Amino acid sequence: MAGKIGQQTFMLDKKVYITHTANAGGTEEAKGPLADYFDTLFDDDMCGEKTWEKAESQLVISALDNLFNKSTCTESEIDAMFGGDLLNQCISVSFGARGRQIPYFGLYGACSTFVEGMMLGSFMISGGFANKTIAVTSSHFCSAERQYRAPVQLGNQRTPTAQRTVTASGAALLSESTIGEKDKSQIYIDSITPGIITDYMVKDPNNMGAAMAPAAADTILKHLKDTGRDINYYDLILTGDLGDVGYDICRQLLKNKIEDVVENYNDCGRLIYDRDLQDVHAGGSGCGCVASVFSGYLFDKLVKGELNRILLVGTGALFSPTSSFQGESIPGIGHAIAICTEK
Amino acid sequence: MAGKIGQQTFMLDKKVYITHTANAGGTEEAKGPLADYFDTLFDDDMCGEKTWEKAESQLVISALDNLFNKSTCTESEIDAMFGGDLLNQCISVSFGARGRQIPYFGLYGACSTFVEGMMLGSFMISGGFANKTIAVTSSHFCSAERQYRAPVQLGNQRTPTAQRTVTASGAALLSESTIGEKDKSQIYIDSITPGIITDYMVKDPNNMGAAMAPAAADTILKHLKDTGRDINYYDLILTGDLGDVGYDICRQLLKNKIEDVVENYNDCGRLIYDRDLQDVHAGGSGCGCVASVFSGYLFDKLVKGELNRILLVGTGALFSPTSSFQGESIPGIGHAIAICTEK
Repeated sequence: MAGKIGQQTFMLDKKVYITHTANAGGTEEAKGPLADYFDTLFDDDMCGEKTWEKAESQLVISALDNLFNKSTCTESEIDAMFGGDLLNQCISVSFGARGRQIPYFGLYGACSTFVEGMMLGSFMISGGFANKTIAVTSSHFCSAERQYRAPVQLGNQRTPTAQRTVTASGAALLSESTIGEKDKSQIYIDSITPGIITDYMVKDPNNMGAAMAPAAADTILKHLKDTGRDINYYDLILTGDLGDVGYDICRQLLKNKIEDVVENYNDCGRLIYDRDLQDVHAGGSGCGCVASVFSGYLFDKLVKGELNRILLVGTGALFSPTSSFQGESIPGIGHAIAICTEK
Repeated sequence: MAGKIGQQTFMLDKKVYITHTANAGGTEEAKGPLADYFDTLFDDDMCGEKTWEKAESQLVISALDNLFNKSTCTESEIDAMFGGDLLNQCISVSFGARGRQIPYFGLYGACSTFVEGMMLGSFMISGGFANKTIAVTSSHFCSAERQYRAPVQLGNQRTPTAQRTVTASGAALLSESTIGEKDKSQIYIDSITPGIITDYMVKDPNNMGAAMAPAAADTILKHLKDTGRDINYYDLILTGDLGDVGYDICRQLLKNKIEDVVENYNDCGRLIYDRDLQDVHAGGSGCGCVASVFSGYLFDKLVKGELNRILLVGTGALFSPTSSFQGESIPGIGHAIAICTEK
């Protein structure tokens, strides 16, 4: 095989470019430090709809509209779209994608879905099957609370380990070719390390960072081993939504194996909110967290050449309220892609 | 691009072989005409567990165990596994796949997920990234009734259009090479036509066949147009789980466009149960329907050379109880793969 190295890493000998990204967010995201990196910020988390689930679909519709506007692509140019969200039967993205004349692959990787969608699109493009694919995911604080815990109207007190589900959608356009703007850095996916389902028997649905951290660390360590790269090869290693608790655990798990002090590691859930001014407990989470942070803030840093090599690790907790009620633990998964720039 | 022809069909110039399949089923499936084509039939639909969701995971575990036993593959030989089910957050397959040291891609394409998993595995293999991948899905009558309608203990009367969710799991092993048994037909995936989300505004969750039929017909017609093939090119065109109502609609939609009488079209949901002896209303449905029928009955017919060219169309209804409660229609999707044999 051309692509596979080591235990579970795939090198993309034929590069896959990320040419455009777009996103949309809600009111709490508008108060955060990354507000300037959103294409659309709704001034009401209902997004003009009557239910939270439909509001989440509007975030998807808005992110996709922004992506098509920025890229000037038509639907017929897109060979496949990969999408998913956190809700029962992934309704927000499938309703948000309805009406688009694009072959659709529905995914469920919990909060890792955005990176999973970029992975699978990359295989199609680098394998010669597609010119362009889209990855899109969403989450919404209110729909996720109702889905996984309790409706927000109950006013339940949240635990210190709880994270706030990001109200946002993010979308990325992958292409076999660059957009050809020679003054900007071209951004490409260099390699892919999909994760294995990892279960450290964490059972607390209010502490998903702890449940997902071992999977993230496992995938990062396998990626480094498979590629033979030092952890400092990357300007930044960024997990999706472990938040404070999961970040600390993942960092410690990495330090246990790697002697270098892990200074280039952070988490999207720690970036999206202002921790002093916003009451978000352990940080951000959700399918929309890594999707909107990558599509906005990170993509901007890559375009400007302020970051040139990042390892983006989508992190997912593969449970449901039903499995928790039945006494099950919360398995996690971490999907990693290495994203680099070239002039 | 090497692969894409027409609007949405991908030809696999490098063939992807389906070398082994396996399945497991429940008590109603054991009474049906395809019982002999199951590797494992549980004599209790609880499968030794205390909940239906855990029972469904046992079906997955059993199907995967059977697949590994039949193929004599080890986990380290499998480059990726694609899985999904119908439950909230796809817990049955992710818990059933937990513990396997195989990179895992979670999917949600409703009942189309099995075919979706074979498609995405095919792109990885034909694109040169993987030697072997697995697709696995499951469904369970009792977990699905509770999930989408009402717990079976309520004893609600079912409508004539309702289908019985198949209690089964099916798994397929895809490979870049044949198993080399020269006396048997070798089975390969020839081409792939992923579907577009199609919504004919059907709103009745007890009539999912009608909701999915337009998507199935759309994908079949696009596949024939893209490939330039006549409908009689195939020995059999088989949709996943439209049941009687959806079958009639899909057949009529095909006949509206194709003058040939469509005699080579059938539906897995019409095959798995004995319609005179079993009280299954409009037939079978669910992620486990197409998965177990393909993995058992159809694969056997292909191996024996009794069928040599089939078009398998996974059909999914992309809704949830929440979307129905909120007045939404039920969008459908149809994913088609052409499966052929060679000596």
